[in-house]
Amino acid sequence: MHALVIYAHPEPQSFNAVLRDVAASTLTDSGYEVEVSDLYAMKFKAVLDRDDFSTVHDEQRFNVTLEQRHAATHHSLANDIVAELDKLLRADLVIFQFPLWWFGLPAILKGWIDRVFVSGVVYGRSNIFERGKLKGKRALVSVTTGGPAASFGRDALNGDLLDILAPLHRGVLAFTGMTVLPPFICAHVPYAGPQERVEMSHRYREHLLALDRLKPLEMPRLADHLEEIESSMKARAR
Amino acid sequence: MHALVIYAHPEPQSFNAVLRDVAASTLTDSGYEVEVSDLYAMKFKAVLDRDDFSTVHDEQRFNVTLEQRHAATHHSLANDIVAELDKLLRADLVIFQFPLWWFGLPAILKGWIDRVFVSGVVYGRSNIFERGKLKGKRALVSVTTGGPAASFGRDALNGDLLDILAPLHRGVLAFTGMTVLPPFICAHVPYAGPQERVEMSHRYREHLLALDRLKPLEMPRLADHLEEIESSMKARAR
Repeated sequence: MHALVIYAHPEPQSFNAVLRDVAASTLTDSGYEVEVSDLYAMKFKAVLDRDDFSTVHDEQRFNVTLEQRHAATHHSLANDIVAELDKLLRADLVIFQFPLWWFGLPAILKGWIDRVFVSGVVYGRSNIFERGKLKGKRALVSVTTGGPAASFGRDALNGDLLDILAPLHRGVLAFTGMTVLPPFICAHVPYAGPQERVEMSHRYREHLLALDRLKPLEMPRLADHLEEIESSMKARAR
Repeated sequence: MHALVIYAHPEPQSFNAVLRDVAASTLTDSGYEVEVSDLYAMKFKAVLDRDDFSTVHDEQRFNVTLEQRHAATHHSLANDIVAELDKLLRADLVIFQFPLWWFGLPAILKGWIDRVFVSGVVYGRSNIFERGKLKGKRALVSVTTGGPAASFGRDALNGDLLDILAPLHRGVLAFTGMTVLPPFICAHVPYAGPQERVEMSHRYREHLLALDRLKPLEMPRLADHLEEIESSMKARAR
C-alpha cells in the first residue's frame, strides 16, 4: 500500500508540519510506503501555463484541456508534473495537509491540482465520478483553521466546514473517482497551546489508525445524472 | 467611481478576455475609471512567502498573519502587493473574471487573494463581515465553466454554482465587508459557437448596466454571532 501526503505550508515548524509527520509515521507503522510532497520546500511551480508542456497542440490558442490531453498522449508533460503524477497514480491513499487560507487551498496547493490533475490522465469526458480514473484510491483532507471551532457550523458565522471543503471533496476528489474520507480538522490552531497541540496530534493518529472504519462521504454518481448531461449535449447540438 | 477587474486566464484570445473587455468598456461608458489586473500577463507571483515582506517580524517562525500585519505597519510589503492593494483600496467595484478550474479559482488568482488580502489592511481581528475594512465596495464574480448549465444546480451532478462559489463570495468578499452582487455565469463555454459567445457577451453588458438594480447576496453578520465567538474565546482562555 502506498500513501502520498501533499503538504503545503511555508513554515517548517508549523503545526501543519507536525500533522504531516504524524501521518508519515502512523501510516508507516500501518504498513504503508509513504511519500511526501512538501510543495513549499520543492518551490513547486503554482501557475499552469505553456511551460507545462514541451509540445504545442495549438499554437494559435492555448486551451488547457486540449494541451493537457495532447501532452499526456505524447509524453511531453513537464518533469515536475510527471513526478507528481507518478506519486499520485501509485498512491492508494492521498492526504492533503494544509492551512485553510481564505476558505480554500493555499495557491501553491491549488496550483498542484491545476497542473497535476491532467485531463486524459485523472479524468476524461465521461470518466468522472464513479467512472473517474482515480477510482479505488482514498483521499483524506487534513486542514487547520485560524477561526475557532464555534465559528464553523451550519448556522455559525463561517458556515459548515464540509460546505467550505465541498469544492475540493466533490469537485476534485470525488470528480476523479476517489473515495473521500471524512476530513480531519484542527480549529483555532494559532491560539492553541503546546498541550492542546499534542492532544490534536494524538487525535490525528487515532483518525488515521481508524481509516478503514470511517464511513466515506456521500457523493453524487454520474449514472444518476446521465439524462441531464445528455439533454444539455443535445441542446448544444441543435 | 473606480472599478478594478482582476482577470486570470492564460490565453489572450479566450472568451474570458472578451468578458474582461466587455466589463472595461461597459463600465467606462457608465462613468467608471477602470483598471485591469491581467495576472497572467503580469506574471503575478502566486505563492505567498517571506519574499512578500522586506521586514522580518519573527525570524524563528513564519506566521503569515503576523508578518502581514507587521509589514503593513512598517510599509514593507512587496511592491507588487502594494500596487494591487492600491488598486483594490481605490475601487468602488471589484470584478473577478476567471474560468472555474477544479470548482475553484485558478492558482494565480487564489495567490492574488492570499498575497493582496493583507491582514490588518483588508480585515482585522473583529473587523470582519459588516465591520470588514472593505465595507462600501461592491464585488462581482464573472465565471466561465466547462461543464454544461444542466450539470449545475441543487440536485445536479456538480451541485449549485452558488455553493461552489460560496468560499469566494462568503469567505473572501463578504468576510472583508464587501457587498456581493449576484455572479455572472457563462456555462459550457469551450463548446459555445461564435453566435452564442456574442449573445453571452451582450448578456454580460446588460448585467453590468443593471448593477444598481441587482439585489446583493445575503450574507451573515458578525453582530448575529458575537456570542458564539466570545464563548470560544472564553473556552480558549480557560
